[in-house]
Amino acid sequence: MQELLGGQYGEITVAMQYMFQGWNSHLPGKYRDLVFGIGAEEVGHVEMLAVMIAQLLEEAPVEQSEAAIKNDPTVAAVIGGMDIQHAIVAGAGARPVDSMGNPWSGAYVTASGNLLADFYNNAAAEMQGRVQATRVFHATDDKGVRDLLSFMIARDTMHQNQWLAAARELVEEGYEALPVPSNFPLASEDRSVAYQYQNFSDGALASTGSWASGPSPDGKGEFSYVDGPQDHGVVTMPGTTTPDPRLYGTTDTPNVLEKVKGKIKDVL
Amino acid sequence: MQELLGGQYGEITVAMQYMFQGWNSHLPGKYRDLVFGIGAEEVGHVEMLAVMIAQLLEEAPVEQSEAAIKNDPTVAAVIGGMDIQHAIVAGAGARPVDSMGNPWSGAYVTASGNLLADFYNNAAAEMQGRVQATRVFHATDDKGVRDLLSFMIARDTMHQNQWLAAARELVEEGYEALPVPSNFPLASEDRSVAYQYQNFSDGALASTGSWASGPSPDGKGEFSYVDGPQDHGVVTMPGTTTPDPRLYGTTDTPNVLEKVKGKIKDVL
Amino acid sequence: MQELLGGQYGEITVAMQYMFQGWNSHLPGKYRDLVFGIGAEEVGHVEMLAVMIAQLLEEAPVEQSEAAIKNDPTVAAVIGGMDIQHAIVAGAGARPVDSMGNPWSGAYVTASGNLLADFYNNAAAEMQGRVQATRVFHATDDKGVRDLLSFMIARDTMHQNQWLAAARELVEEGYEALPVPSNFPLASEDRSVAYQYQNFSDGALASTGSWASGPSPDGKGEFSYVDGPQDHGVVTMPGTTTPDPRLYGTTDTPNVLEKVKGKIKDVL
Amino acid sequence: MQELLGGQYGEITVAMQYMFQGWNSHLPGKYRDLVFGIGAEEVGHVEMLAVMIAQLLEEAPVEQSEAAIKNDPTVAAVIGGMDIQHAIVAGAGARPVDSMGNPWSGAYVTASGNLLADFYNNAAAEMQGRVQATRVFHATDDKGVRDLLSFMIARDTMHQNQWLAAARELVEEGYEALPVPSNFPLASEDRSVAYQYQNFSDGALASTGSWASGPSPDGKGEFSYVDGPQDHGVVTMPGTTTPDPRLYGTTDTPNVLEKVKGKIKDVL
Amino acid sequence: MQELLGGQYGEITVAMQYMFQGWNSHLPGKYRDLVFGIGAEEVGHVEMLAVMIAQLLEEAPVEQSEAAIKNDPTVAAVIGGMDIQHAIVAGAGARPVDSMGNPWSGAYVTASGNLLADFYNNAAAEMQGRVQATRVFHATDDKGVRDLLSFMIARDTMHQNQWLAAARELVEEGYEALPVPSNFPLASEDRSVAYQYQNFSDGALASTGSWASGPSPDGKGEFSYVDGPQDHGVVTMPGTTTPDPRLYGTTDTPNVLEKVKGKIKDVL
Amino acid sequence: MQELLGGQYGEITVAMQYMFQGWNSHLPGKYRDLVFGIGAEEVGHVEMLAVMIAQLLEEAPVEQSEAAIKNDPTVAAVIGGMDIQHAIVAGAGARPVDSMGNPWSGAYVTASGNLLADFYNNAAAEMQGRVQATRVFHATDDKGVRDLLSFMIARDTMHQNQWLAAARELVEEGYEALPVPSNFPLASEDRSVAYQYQNFSDGALASTGSWASGPSPDGKGEFSYVDGPQDHGVVTMPGTTTPDPRLYGTTDTPNVLEKVKGKIKDVL
Repeated sequence: MQELLGGQYGEITVAMQYMFQGWNSHLPGKYRDLVFGIGAEEVGHVEMLAVMIAQLLEEAPVEQSEAAIKNDPTVAAVIGGMDIQHAIVAGAGARPVDSMGNPWSGAYVTASGNLLADFYNNAAAEMQGRVQATRVFHATDDKGVRDLLSFMIARDTMHQNQWLAAARELVEEGYEALPVPSNFPLASEDRSVAYQYQNFSDGALASTGSWASGPSPDGKGEFSYVDGPQDHGVVTMPGTTTPDPRLYGTTDTPNVLEKVKGKIKDVL
Repeated sequence: MQELLGGQYGEITVAMQYMFQGWNSHLPGKYRDLVFGIGAEEVGHVEMLAVMIAQLLEEAPVEQSEAAIKNDPTVAAVIGGMDIQHAIVAGAGARPVDSMGNPWSGAYVTASGNLLADFYNNAAAEMQGRVQATRVFHATDDKGVRDLLSFMIARDTMHQNQWLAAARELVEEGYEALPVPSNFPLASEDRSVAYQYQNFSDGALASTGSWASGPSPDGKGEFSYVDGPQDHGVVTMPGTTTPDPRLYGTTDTPNVLEKVKGKIKDVL
Repeated sequence: MQELLGGQYGEITVAMQYMFQGWNSHLPGKYRDLVFGIGAEEVGHVEMLAVMIAQLLEEAPVEQSEAAIKNDPTVAAVIGGMDIQHAIVAGAGARPVDSMGNPWSGAYVTASGNLLADFYNNAAAEMQGRVQATRVFHATDDKGVRDLLSFMIARDTMHQNQWLAAARELVEEGYEALPVPSNFPLASEDRSVAYQYQNFSDGALASTGSWASGPSPDGKGEFSYVDGPQDHGVVTMPGTTTPDPRLYGTTDTPNVLEKVKGKIKDVL
Repeated sequence: MQELLGGQYGEITVAMQYMFQGWNSHLPGKYRDLVFGIGAEEVGHVEMLAVMIAQLLEEAPVEQSEAAIKNDPTVAAVIGGMDIQHAIVAGAGARPVDSMGNPWSGAYVTASGNLLADFYNNAAAEMQGRVQATRVFHATDDKGVRDLLSFMIARDTMHQNQWLAAARELVEEGYEALPVPSNFPLASEDRSVAYQYQNFSDGALASTGSWASGPSPDGKGEFSYVDGPQDHGVVTMPGTTTPDPRLYGTTDTPNVLEKVKGKIKDVL
Repeated sequence: MQELLGGQYGEITVAMQYMFQGWNSHLPGKYRDLVFGIGAEEVGHVEMLAVMIAQLLEEAPVEQSEAAIKNDPTVAAVIGGMDIQHAIVAGAGARPVDSMGNPWSGAYVTASGNLLADFYNNAAAEMQGRVQATRVFHATDDKGVRDLLSFMIARDTMHQNQWLAAARELVEEGYEALPVPSNFPLASEDRSVAYQYQNFSDGALASTGSWASGPSPDGKGEFSYVDGPQDHGVVTMPGTTTPDPRLYGTTDTPNVLEKVKGKIKDVL
Repeated sequence: MQELLGGQYGEITVAMQYMFQGWNSHLPGKYRDLVFGIGAEEVGHVEMLAVMIAQLLEEAPVEQSEAAIKNDPTVAAVIGGMDIQHAIVAGAGARPVDSMGNPWSGAYVTASGNLLADFYNNAAAEMQGRVQATRVFHATDDKGVRDLLSFMIARDTMHQNQWLAAARELVEEGYEALPVPSNFPLASEDRSVAYQYQNFSDGALASTGSWASGPSPDGKGEFSYVDGPQDHGVVTMPGTTTPDPRLYGTTDTPNVLEKVKGKIKDVL
């Protein structure tokens, strides 16, 4: 349950992510209302999960869990990894951490200011979140917990659909397009490799995929396939560098310091 | 440049992410070759960026940067925030950190074992990566750096297209579908709220979006719109809990410890 | 035990916190001697705990713990979550981590240069620390461990009292006062809301507390109660922003880049 | 500004802290309404700061800041350290990080289930927060920013007073007392050192403080002063340990492995 | 196994460390080939471990582990601490984290640009790595896992020897010497304490070691022994500081702000 | 300066590392006295640096640094990246963080219980530390700072020599040997690859090093050289895995869930 609350794709992440996307939004109207609205809903999910965890922990220690452990060693093992800080630090309360005790991190939040990139990120986050929730679903047969998860899994279904619909609409209305960001002049990228599948793998089966021939999803190119990395100048390993001698790196002129004496003011 | 190397959506992240997706893959054939192949390509990008950074730093300290700083205070400011650990820790070398010095973290990697969820994640990561690279593009007018970025931005174009093509193909071939994960029985989720837009925002404009009416992208439902949060039983704030007295929480029976004396063995 | 050593409110935290408060102290005399003195004492507590943990681990693996586990599944579960890195990384030794394996972090240390703020922080840390130590007390019936904890819990009693006494004395001697920092001119804060309880909660019971009417603890105001958030101008959600086009955000002028062509030098 | 938003004592911290204290609360009524109410208010402060930062960044890059930098090198230096990820990652938006780019961490949240310990923590957090806000106040002379800070500094004044009033009331109503936790039987702690100032510092001035003689704030003891650490048995450095030979530590019986051969099953 | 993959001295660390040392190398030729070559080998070890972990997890949940747990509570306990995120997040796959779930961190990588310092670091890392691998060896009696570990432990033997050989050769060829960095003018360090053992410990046995008398390993000095810390001027605790009044620290001139009124522009 | 205090190889790290090695020591006598003694000395160095930083910061803000910045843009840039949290959080005081603001982490500490591995680690840490201190030496021409650094660089010289002497003595006295750990039966490792240089690099120059032929430093083998990775069975990429269907991974039997219906109890 803590993974769904404070994990990388937990409810704290999506709540904060959608709120920051709203605060950083440069586009007024329905899209901004959308990110704020779903962000507010996710705050409610944070609350549901935190309260549910606190209730589950209420009876956990000590006689109760001793009994559970004695009857079912699997439960014993799971509890073993779970409730140390719940007990010592939170006194049988929920915590803003994931299922291994890693504190929730602001680094989980993505809000780039580019809505198409962010909407795809949101859709992907809801997919990871639904995958995790369905896995947790099987770890319990408590009716109350399953009801809560059943509700949340359905909302993840809604949110996956909704972010993909919003991404599609954003493109249809001309605000953004593939490749993201669409405003960057295509002439400034190296178009010769922009639709070329370069096979770096030992296996060659990737050549049979729809990403190796035919039109690209952005409608602006045709996929091609080349076997192995291609030379592009930039990939040639250049010579070694010779940094400032005051950084005391190891160079092929070990007495370089001698030579520059007088030229640099602060040695001797 | 460090952001593109060791940031959340930098080359280390995508290289590690695709490799872990390959190692954890449960599906042999073209999709596994694909994640391994692109993972290997991204390892090459890590190398390109690291070498480029080391070369840029070669001449940075000290006379060189003093000159730059004296001529252009903007450069001075940027260098000020950037090269402290580059100089002291790495001796004018690249580091596995982002542009603010945060070490790269294994938490950036997503490899869930569900390929459709992961492919959407990959596409979103390439979008964020391309957005960041285009922003860095404007921070320099060095020809060599711009050539490298132009190459990488084009590869990001390829990778956005490729992951979306792979996601589409995965669905068409019946391996997975929306909502992810498609194997979870829909009957086990609360279908009554699975396509319902619940407006938690002050603004009502979200009701006009394609996510509030019409068919859903997964083809399994019809969007609807309701204003404000709905009651679902689970959201009612329950009563407070009364945990084990040995956790010394604050309860409305402050002398509860007295009452349980004798029942619990290890107090006194 | 690791929580008491390397957790957020463990002995490493208070030892480092009091030492840094001493090094950063701007006030000579008894207060500086106090923070240094207690800091040195806490270093001793770090040692006591580390040595105790090493001794407990001495016999833990493997036959010993196998036996314990066979006899008592609760112990099995606790050990299961605890000794993985103790064994693999430290070879049956203590580590500077908390009970979930999170490394101790310099971010736990508070030393602001303002002694009244810091003394309240110290008192609060000793309260959290004593709460945690009493919880751990019940997790064992080993006589040696309980003796050590009994000693440490008593020192936490002393330190709670001592920091509150020091805070009171600091105010009585005129060095600082509530609200902290007392040197900031009160006229520069918005006095109209400085003693006003604004109820943002659904429940209205907070109106009956001593924080909603009557004199304030700082002796400089009278509490009042207002229901719901008040308008203060600043809280009105402003319009969206339009950042530099070279950042490629999504705006309502998607072709804004076209318009600024010629004005910015590094595109095209 | 980012420090006030995503720093250790920033608005995200207090918002999350008060909410978790509410969800984990074991005491119904006014105290629970209080933590929920102030938590909700702090969520509003998060929004104010995030929106303000986004607006400040709107005009920051590039011409604008170039001009500022040219006119005022101090501004140049500050911007240099600040806006790298704001630009590259967030596209001129706010981020859930502190002023040095460290992501906000769930480890900042304290919610122990013991309300007196937590209320002191809340008061201390508001003191640190007000100290930081007054320092930031001097870093700008922008009217809008100063108005926002003036409002927030006043709310910090309110919250310092309020948490201290709530702590006092909690004690007066008999829910909790000093030392925290008050339910732990005093007889189980080593009372002989519970009010003794042990001087570990070189300076002896701490002996003159109110923490070295006279009645203690908890009303349950009398302070005393002893010079230097006292022997309590537990502090004697014990002999070294001899862990399981399969952990390959360095011991004074380097060939211990030979001796146990046959006794442990999995070597050879 | 996760410790050997994503821990501080796991395979990801050494792979990344040697690659960064190569990219940052200032010395062409055999040493650069060496760090690149071993870095590439370690990437292969990352793959071996990740695949092995994924295979071990394949059958782990749920019936399988239930059976194992029922038969052997030790296994139950170990699994309890281990597979929570493996199951929920990775779907029975490997993850870039250590055995306690801490994400791998870029801070584990050392690449200073000084090859002698780095080679000693590499040798030490291979020692820690071999110690950990031998400890894990005893945690299983699975033939396949033991074969993999037997191979890796042998490679650690090779790498310990190789980095020490490389360090010796680097010195013999005159590129670097002890003390590192050898280019820093010895006259700029305080030579009077450069070979002096200063005993800060209660025990005096350290005086009998080869580090307290006789020639030093760098061949440039003679060890000596002095009991207790020596006065060197710098260690005298200086007076307290008086920082800028706008930082609102606690000083012995509490009304200092009054005095500077008029001198600083932004208060009042 | 903050890097030398709170960085990965700063004084806090070595102080804590040597203390933990002492607490975890399994070997009484001179080696234990040694780690405790040097640990105590390093605590003194932490104090020196913290006090020096506080003194340097005393005059830094605001007029002072304004002047410095106006006269020397290089200083402006350095200060720009440095003093944000020093000012806002610490009020012109030192902090337990590195030069980029990353909090010191318990993960920096190495104490494995194997003294030879740990002594090499200590020697390497002192090398990195001395490299960093010499680099910082050039960043200032303040006499007091240079005197302190000159003292510390000399102590790093002592400590490099001392740990290498202690490592040598530990081997000579038979407590430990190469390869570490020497107690692990060599017969349990794959001796066929224990002294074999396997060239994974494009360059072949590594074949000319002393690590590719001749006797190995541990005196137990002879180096050999083979070009390219060798087959060892374990490296063959195995088939994909098929995890428990309740984890909803993507497999080549997408309807596997159907097939197992009835066999697993908690789906439907």
